[in-house]
Amino acid sequence: MRLYSYFRSSASFRVRIALALKKLDYEYAAIQLVKNEQLQPAFRAIAASQLVPALVVDDPAHGEATLTQSLAIIEYLDETFPEPPLLPADALGRARVRAIALDIACEIHPLDNLRVLRYLQRELKVSDDDKDRWYRHWVETGLDVVERGLADHPSTGRFCHGDRPGLADCVLVPQIFNAQRMQCRLDHVPTVMRIFAACMAEPAFAQTQPSACPDAA
Amino acid sequence: MRLYSYFRSSASFRVRIALALKKLDYEYAAIQLVKNEQLQPAFRAIAASQLVPALVVDDPAHGEATLTQSLAIIEYLDETFPEPPLLPADALGRARVRAIALDIACEIHPLDNLRVLRYLQRELKVSDDDKDRWYRHWVETGLDVVERGLADHPSTGRFCHGDRPGLADCVLVPQIFNAQRMQCRLDHVPTVMRIFAACMAEPAFAQTQPSACPDAA
Repeated sequence: MRLYSYFRSSASFRVRIALALKKLDYEYAAIQLVKNEQLQPAFRAIAASQLVPALVVDDPAHGEATLTQSLAIIEYLDETFPEPPLLPADALGRARVRAIALDIACEIHPLDNLRVLRYLQRELKVSDDDKDRWYRHWVETGLDVVERGLADHPSTGRFCHGDRPGLADCVLVPQIFNAQRMQCRLDHVPTVMRIFAACMAEPAFAQTQPSACPDAA
Repeated sequence: MRLYSYFRSSASFRVRIALALKKLDYEYAAIQLVKNEQLQPAFRAIAASQLVPALVVDDPAHGEATLTQSLAIIEYLDETFPEPPLLPADALGRARVRAIALDIACEIHPLDNLRVLRYLQRELKVSDDDKDRWYRHWVETGLDVVERGLADHPSTGRFCHGDRPGLADCVLVPQIFNAQRMQCRLDHVPTVMRIFAACMAEPAFAQTQPSACPDAA
């Protein structure tokens, strides 16, 4: 497998964690977002969206194929390499885990990614201060929703769902890295931060964090 | 089942289509977003995210439960009521369908939903013209990505994946409704529009469209 990744891309980080939890080997192909490598024709031919991550797999049924969208990639990995499972066995548990992942992947992350921040600055002439305030607003209000879904829920364990890391944790941890880098407030989300600490004690998370990537600055 | 929905919410529309494709009966509970009913304590107790849709189900294993996040809800429905399937049988096909759905649900829709547009206007003092330009920018560039993933792909059929409507179509059609309402350019996405027309010829899509909802203005 070959993963097109950028060390600071939180969507790439999600997939790196999932690959590490599954103990899968892969080639790391760095796409430097700050140099706009994702906009070059060579990468556009790999991913129409011009977004990382993309994962090239040798599918058992169809041969070589390129997968995009981090959550779709992780679901594919979970279906193709079932151990350890990243989703619970019951449909209701799976719905909960997917909803936590989507609360971050749909409600927080898209508002704060690089192309959106660039549009705010270049097209709407938003000031740096207002851009940072925008960033923190969606992170802080979005994580508050995640916190309320985790705190006191009977299925929350050492990790987002039970005592084994899964899809929701793969999405939560990279978002906290972004939040910390942008100095967002995090004292209102104690359950989130407890789970973050539990994840970072696991090699699959620690060894795939941005600073551990081959392309880390 | 009880669906908390708003007639114009495209995330609600996705779930309405899936419920109709599965021929499942449900009670329709209107949440008027323009009146901010989603921000009231009564609804916050149902959905921490204060976003529609939310679906109350009687889970076979766990009893009454409330599901949130449209894509997680649709996956739950597909697992719990398998016929007709909304995802392909093969892992690679499922990854493709989920990626198309996420190309819309993560890259287009979050940027154009009501709370984001309100933030642009109220907090960043963006003009109405610039707000509309922002809206159209993400729809038009985002649909271009979807078009490139559909056009000439061997798995694209009468619908996004093969000749039966599925998850990707449930997400695509509501986005086109939004695009048309905001007068976005659509002449650059002919495959998208061909599939949109095929969907709208199906009762499950036509009968759940915003104007057909009990709370339509």
